[in-house]
Amino acid sequence: MKLGIIGSGQLGLMMILEGKKLGLEFNVIAETKEGPASRIADRAYVYDQFREFVDNSDFVTYEFEHVDGRVLDYASSVNKLRPGIFPVELKRDRSKEKDFLSEKSLPVGPYKVAENASTAIQYASQYGNAVIKSAFGGYDGKGQYIIKNGKVPGDIPEGKYVVEEFVDFDYEASIIGARTTNGEVSFFDPSLNVNKRGMLYYNIAPTKDSGMKEITTRLMNELDYVGVIGVEFFIVNGKALINEFAPRVHNTGHHTLLGSSISQFEQHVRAVCDFPLEDPVLYRPSGIINVVGTQPDSETIRKILEMPEAQYFWYGKNGIRKRRKVGHVNLAAPTYEEVSSKIEQMAGMIYGNDPDTCFTD
Amino acid sequence: MKLGIIGSGQLGLMMILEGKKLGLEFNVIAETKEGPASRIADRAYVYDQFREFVDNSDFVTYEFEHVDGRVLDYASSVNKLRPGIFPVELKRDRSKEKDFLSEKSLPVGPYKVAENASTAIQYASQYGNAVIKSAFGGYDGKGQYIIKNGKVPGDIPEGKYVVEEFVDFDYEASIIGARTTNGEVSFFDPSLNVNKRGMLYYNIAPTKDSGMKEITTRLMNELDYVGVIGVEFFIVNGKALINEFAPRVHNTGHHTLLGSSISQFEQHVRAVCDFPLEDPVLYRPSGIINVVGTQPDSETIRKILEMPEAQYFWYGKNGIRKRRKVGHVNLAAPTYEEVSSKIEQMAGMIYGNDPDTCFTD
Repeated sequence: MKLGIIGSGQLGLMMILEGKKLGLEFNVIAETKEGPASRIADRAYVYDQFREFVDNSDFVTYEFEHVDGRVLDYASSVNKLRPGIFPVELKRDRSKEKDFLSEKSLPVGPYKVAENASTAIQYASQYGNAVIKSAFGGYDGKGQYIIKNGKVPGDIPEGKYVVEEFVDFDYEASIIGARTTNGEVSFFDPSLNVNKRGMLYYNIAPTKDSGMKEITTRLMNELDYVGVIGVEFFIVNGKALINEFAPRVHNTGHHTLLGSSISQFEQHVRAVCDFPLEDPVLYRPSGIINVVGTQPDSETIRKILEMPEAQYFWYGKNGIRKRRKVGHVNLAAPTYEEVSSKIEQMAGMIYGNDPDTCFTD
Repeated sequence: MKLGIIGSGQLGLMMILEGKKLGLEFNVIAETKEGPASRIADRAYVYDQFREFVDNSDFVTYEFEHVDGRVLDYASSVNKLRPGIFPVELKRDRSKEKDFLSEKSLPVGPYKVAENASTAIQYASQYGNAVIKSAFGGYDGKGQYIIKNGKVPGDIPEGKYVVEEFVDFDYEASIIGARTTNGEVSFFDPSLNVNKRGMLYYNIAPTKDSGMKEITTRLMNELDYVGVIGVEFFIVNGKALINEFAPRVHNTGHHTLLGSSISQFEQHVRAVCDFPLEDPVLYRPSGIINVVGTQPDSETIRKILEMPEAQYFWYGKNGIRKRRKVGHVNLAAPTYEEVSSKIEQMAGMIYGNDPDTCFTD
């Protein structure tokens, strides 16, 4: 069987490394053939070859929402695209995602859609504390403006925005779910996430469910979803509000690569290729810390690997930039507290005393 | 860093899938570019390109002993070969392996070296119950003749042989060790192995140590070994006798792919590329059953994957033959007995009522 992946980043790379065991062949399509996933694929394509790529794949999935529309549309038109074009359409315009969640009575915080920057500022001022988020192309905190006490920080470019009232959350959390064509669902243990400037800094599983499984089951059913989904939540007074979802394997699910009976990547491949899902067993608390905007030197890598139950992933991207995810470290331990302590030590090894610099443009 | 692998079978494939996370590039050399490891390598070579392959790799290792001598010799001559040429030389002639172990006072059963077939038969008759093993090219039970009560089963072709007195063992076991250039050693939990016609049928970890770690440490030190080693033992009255060793990742170490904090494949890559070793944590009992000489149909694969904590590995070899290893299934469970029971069920799924046929030429 041949699985086509749209996008050639680290998520596609790990999908291949984890899915190859099932004996599949992997095709990858992207702007160039130089991405981490393209280099290990059985066959790499560029976007102009979208027809050949789709025709040569039994199923097509995506590792990222913001990819070439031609390949999505064509794969969808021949019924090979999983998890379908609809979740991507919701993600292409953040207001559609919010409206969909809201219409389906899935819990989201207060928000308003603004067709231009001045309306967005007006709404934000009304909320007092708010986040103005670009409706288009925003991820990892891109195109986001934080408003405190009605004060707007400098200029906001013209465009369509979603304005979200600031949610005074206890903490952020997420869950990785999976669903098959016949509606079977399965979940990994949820994780507690700590973000820095809109990007995941580190996370640890397991954390309390707080309703995340039930909400994500409803969301997947409403979407008639096939594959792995990552859903991010704000936990407010012990209850879960959806922040956003990612219709794909997700950074907050990388912890499943260590200390779990299956990874999110293999689970996704199983789901989209009509294999049965695993009901994941978490053998012990497990977390990750992202490597963003910095390249650990060989002495640092040695120290990372000297830590017990540490796995170092280096994605092999071409070039290191501020705010670019270039690797991560998995850490497991007998207790949650020990994982937490290991992540703290690991942060020191990777970022020294100043992680903020690497997360800032 | 670029790691070159000599041989393109499933062991090389899994080495790449597990080692890629460290950000390495992998070169593979073999007779053709069609093997499972070549197809996923960053670059694939054929044996005539041995100089280019070695020159383009920082370190060179092998996934199998019986590979082209030119590449081994050249890689060794430029000090890139790990774990070195000496272990391969011992494995090329079984009598050298036995003599080496014996000279180093490592525990082996009674054996004699016979320069021709008639002498081999004579020695075997003297032992009464014995195994006559071809000195050259034998693995997975190839070139082996079992003698019971002095009775020789048909003709034995001319050649050099090692004649081993039959060891009345309690059970067979093995351990996967690793050693770095500076002599640091590490071990996975040993496994109990069940063979069928000289090939691994299934195995389960953990089992009792019975001296295997101490013996393997001495063996690795005597060899000044670098990398992962698989050592097979007969356990007789609770004490370990070496059957043979494999200077590479080993079929009895595949259980480390599920329920362990690291796999034997990543451990090998760490050792040969001068990264620190992990001290492996076995999260729970874990075993494998080999898929030999048969191709499970899609309904069987579905049943395999429906079993909790089951991982199916299909190597994607070109063609299925009797006695050919074409895949394996990992199984983990809270107790050893549950793993054992799962393996029994899995054997029924894969082989029906007749596993022997697939293990017989």
